[in-house]
Amino acid sequence: MSGKNEFLPDWANDPPAGGSYRSIFKWGAPDAFKHPNRRLYGMLKEELHLSDDDFRKKRALGNQPVALDLSCGMEPEQVRRFMDISGPENVFSDDYARVKCGTGKTLEEALRLRHGAPVQAPDLVVHPRTAEEIEKIVALCARDGIPAYAYGGGSSVTLGLRPSRGGVCLVMTTHMNRLVRFSEINQTITVEPGMTGPQLENLLNNAPDTLNATRRYTCGHFPQSFEFSSVGGWIAALGSGQQSSYYGDMADLVVSQAYVTPAGAFKTLDYPATATGPKVNDIMKGSEGAFGVIVGATLKIFRYAPENRKRFAFIFPEWEAAVSAARDISQGEFGMPSAFRISDPEETRVAMRLYGIEGTPVDRYLSLRGLRPQNRCLFIGSADGERAFARNIRKKVKKICKRSGAVYITGLPVKKWEHGRFTDPYMREDLGDFGIIIDTLESAVTWEGFHRLHQGVRAFIKSRPRTMCMTHASHFYPQGTNLYFIFIAAMTDLEEYLEFQQGIVEQILKHGGSLSHHHGVGKMTAPWMEAHLGKAQMDVLRALKRHFDPNNIMNPGGTLGLDVADEEKRRLLPGGS
Amino acid sequence: MSGKNEFLPDWANDPPAGGSYRSIFKWGAPDAFKHPNRRLYGMLKEELHLSDDDFRKKRALGNQPVALDLSCGMEPEQVRRFMDISGPENVFSDDYARVKCGTGKTLEEALRLRHGAPVQAPDLVVHPRTAEEIEKIVALCARDGIPAYAYGGGSSVTLGLRPSRGGVCLVMTTHMNRLVRFSEINQTITVEPGMTGPQLENLLNNAPDTLNATRRYTCGHFPQSFEFSSVGGWIAALGSGQQSSYYGDMADLVVSQAYVTPAGAFKTLDYPATATGPKVNDIMKGSEGAFGVIVGATLKIFRYAPENRKRFAFIFPEWEAAVSAARDISQGEFGMPSAFRISDPEETRVAMRLYGIEGTPVDRYLSLRGLRPQNRCLFIGSADGERAFARNIRKKVKKICKRSGAVYITGLPVKKWEHGRFTDPYMREDLGDFGIIIDTLESAVTWEGFHRLHQGVRAFIKSRPRTMCMTHASHFYPQGTNLYFIFIAAMTDLEEYLEFQQGIVEQILKHGGSLSHHHGVGKMTAPWMEAHLGKAQMDVLRALKRHFDPNNIMNPGGTLGLDVADEEKRRLLPGGS
Repeated sequence: MSGKNEFLPDWANDPPAGGSYRSIFKWGAPDAFKHPNRRLYGMLKEELHLSDDDFRKKRALGNQPVALDLSCGMEPEQVRRFMDISGPENVFSDDYARVKCGTGKTLEEALRLRHGAPVQAPDLVVHPRTAEEIEKIVALCARDGIPAYAYGGGSSVTLGLRPSRGGVCLVMTTHMNRLVRFSEINQTITVEPGMTGPQLENLLNNAPDTLNATRRYTCGHFPQSFEFSSVGGWIAALGSGQQSSYYGDMADLVVSQAYVTPAGAFKTLDYPATATGPKVNDIMKGSEGAFGVIVGATLKIFRYAPENRKRFAFIFPEWEAAVSAARDISQGEFGMPSAFRISDPEETRVAMRLYGIEGTPVDRYLSLRGLRPQNRCLFIGSADGERAFARNIRKKVKKICKRSGAVYITGLPVKKWEHGRFTDPYMREDLGDFGIIIDTLESAVTWEGFHRLHQGVRAFIKSRPRTMCMTHASHFYPQGTNLYFIFIAAMTDLEEYLEFQQGIVEQILKHGGSLSHHHGVGKMTAPWMEAHLGKAQMDVLRALKRHFDPNNIMNPGGTLGLDVADEEKRRLLPGGS
Repeated sequence: MSGKNEFLPDWANDPPAGGSYRSIFKWGAPDAFKHPNRRLYGMLKEELHLSDDDFRKKRALGNQPVALDLSCGMEPEQVRRFMDISGPENVFSDDYARVKCGTGKTLEEALRLRHGAPVQAPDLVVHPRTAEEIEKIVALCARDGIPAYAYGGGSSVTLGLRPSRGGVCLVMTTHMNRLVRFSEINQTITVEPGMTGPQLENLLNNAPDTLNATRRYTCGHFPQSFEFSSVGGWIAALGSGQQSSYYGDMADLVVSQAYVTPAGAFKTLDYPATATGPKVNDIMKGSEGAFGVIVGATLKIFRYAPENRKRFAFIFPEWEAAVSAARDISQGEFGMPSAFRISDPEETRVAMRLYGIEGTPVDRYLSLRGLRPQNRCLFIGSADGERAFARNIRKKVKKICKRSGAVYITGLPVKKWEHGRFTDPYMREDLGDFGIIIDTLESAVTWEGFHRLHQGVRAFIKSRPRTMCMTHASHFYPQGTNLYFIFIAAMTDLEEYLEFQQGIVEQILKHGGSLSHHHGVGKMTAPWMEAHLGKAQMDVLRALKRHFDPNNIMNPGGTLGLDVADEEKRRLLPGGS
């Protein structure tokens, strides 16, 4: 199938042009790439009914320089006030800065930028240096009715950063990325919100050197965006890392937070648990910039002992057995695996190619064991924690999986997965260059609702001809898990994409899934919030919004559905703009 | 020391007189008792400088019939409306019902009732049958400005039930105690809020018979009030059970809740985790009846496998070593023990007598090993969960404790503790009959703040002559724990007691403890809430209160400090009334 002289597309290998749209929508580091391998390329052609010819000519690359036909709407006098606060060197109003900080990594934004289509932008970009500056900025914004947005790693996939009404974007990663306090006794680290994943883990993994600690630590939070996302963003959007089944979601990891809101600045208390009324620390988590700006956070940390990690991978004969085993593991009370992922048959077929299992003796052995390629499901996982604890998890997992007819295929696929786990998003631009979209939606679900959600959403996606739908569950709880839908299709029309995406969201809700498990809501799925939570619960969030931000200046324009007027809702809904 | 003919007080062994004050303030079942044993009695005399003579004559017993000099302030027309809703057989306005449902189990209330001192009472007691009735009742109360209180097991130790402004008390345990739904697949149980601990555990432990399940289950929530408290109360006051270090606090156990509030009725969603904004399920936890009435709750459940339990007890040579080992265990990442308790030297001396260790060969062996009686600290614990998981916990715990110089004294003391763990509160009436108070306050604290809090609060309590102060930590987290202070003194004057209690609360705050770890706030420590949380956080809670209950009818009069006016604050503060 894969000869040496076989055609391969000319995947982009050069950094985007400086100042270009592409430099904004391209994932990750400018000079880093991850291309579909030969096997995946072959599969794409098969599944999407494409030929090599479809990969000879690239579409719009977005390498043209950013030019915004939206001038800075702020009076020079106002701009000067921001310069007075944060220094003129930290205030920008050029088109590039405004577009860059006004967009995240949703596919919609990528498609718009690729074609130089109109986007919304803040009037001004400010890189504040301290929480005190942010207090002044928020006070100024509140006084003058200027919208304010916080920008961390810029990896939102929910239009969370879209500056619907102009205003000021505060970039937190430039200066506000410092260590505030480390407590080895409490096993916590307090940082500013702009600290990124690698900065945090480097500090913690090398704690004996960097923090004068007796041990090495980890925060245990590894979302796919890990390399390019920040602590503040994780908290604001309630992220979950790829090892959350053991370490917990961001909702679990945040001990306390400091905020600047139009209603004042405060820091929540640091207790491990209290019974002093509803917890303001909980109330702020997931507020997506709509209540105020996170200016500090204290996170739980864990002992870092990669030498204790036990890895395991299995192939199940079919999906129901994999799901049932995953539930049995999650409810087994022997501790949770750390990485923990089951892939449905379609994703498994892709994974077998990506991880190089297809065509190997393992592949043939699986067939001999009666595991049919069309039904096989991949399960990969690992156990962290104390050595015997991790060892016992692997032992119990093996026992449960084997009882379910699964075949153990060693821990090697997990190592492969670990190696590439942060870099898959790079492939989006490769595919986009040839008019192929790859996008995802994810949803929390109880065990009871699992198959209904999977089948319902998958049926909708697959009802579109020549469309791939890969699904996995990757964050586990005794009460349920999440389903992560990845869809790939040859699709270049923005309207068609938006309509398709809207259809998937509606199928998720129709089949009992949540609006999001770990991506947040932003402005993308905000129009469905009230239908999802119900009016009474939305009214609670609105009451909090009114309290913190009575003049609606904090990330306004639909965030969490807090200020979606009927008219605006129509405009926000895909196809409406 | 303990001869057969030695004097022992004539501890009360008869149920309280029917309709009496004593029948209200007495803990637990009317015909159940637990008296101080000979060894404890001897110790009390020593420590409080009392003699047998002090235990010959009983003080006020509170056996007189309840007579309230506060008539029902409700118009007959209004009373009739409540009868129309819940049936006349479920509506009461007699003195006994009003006093019973207007008081909890704080020592202040017990002292008042014992002496027939004035207490506050609701005008009416209603036993609603359904959530729909509660909707009608809350709507009626909202329309007419009638205060409404929810009464579960009546075990509040924070004046949580005090009906400061008359109104209607809703008793939830009479009818609203039903199973709503059991999901073995999701490992959840949905119940009405009036279900008590034993009702819940009986259902779950016998699930194959009662719920047609394939396994037995447990909720894992065992507060000391277990036998006489209800699910709704646990959630409202954010309780923690004695095995919370493994099973989690009530804050962790609640998957979703249904509420009736003046702003409407709603049910939060059932997902195991979501990223759809701040979680209303979290916002409602700990609201202590001030936002609305809990009418249903879905709780996590766990596999019930008592055969897997591993028990362990140790004696540490001194407190610092015990605390340090407890922290090492909590941060050791091999899973958490289930029961987990370390006692300071004074509590250890009491425990050695209670559990019959003093004077035994074990006692002599400890002395031989150099563990001095004045410094010894008891550690008791157990591990639940899957068999090898539990076994590994015991193994690691032993290793850590031995490294700290502790001596293993088998699992027997844990069995003794398990046997009596719900019954210690019965001793309060025994002591009260002879003018001795026993009371508790508890506080969450980080590991960093542990010793400062222990020393500061203990010093204050011990500065009162002839006062015992026993302290333990019993709910553990990697980031900290709680400290539970038990104080015993010969004290009959209510004002003196209130002043002393106020002093302890102030020392807790002064030394960095939280206002409560698992008892809640109620109206007792409400006056300190703003000083504790800060104005900005209190303003968040007040904004929620305004939203849910704009006319302040839900458990008004100071709950959580939400409606403590300056004047009222003074009145509420001990010594002010």
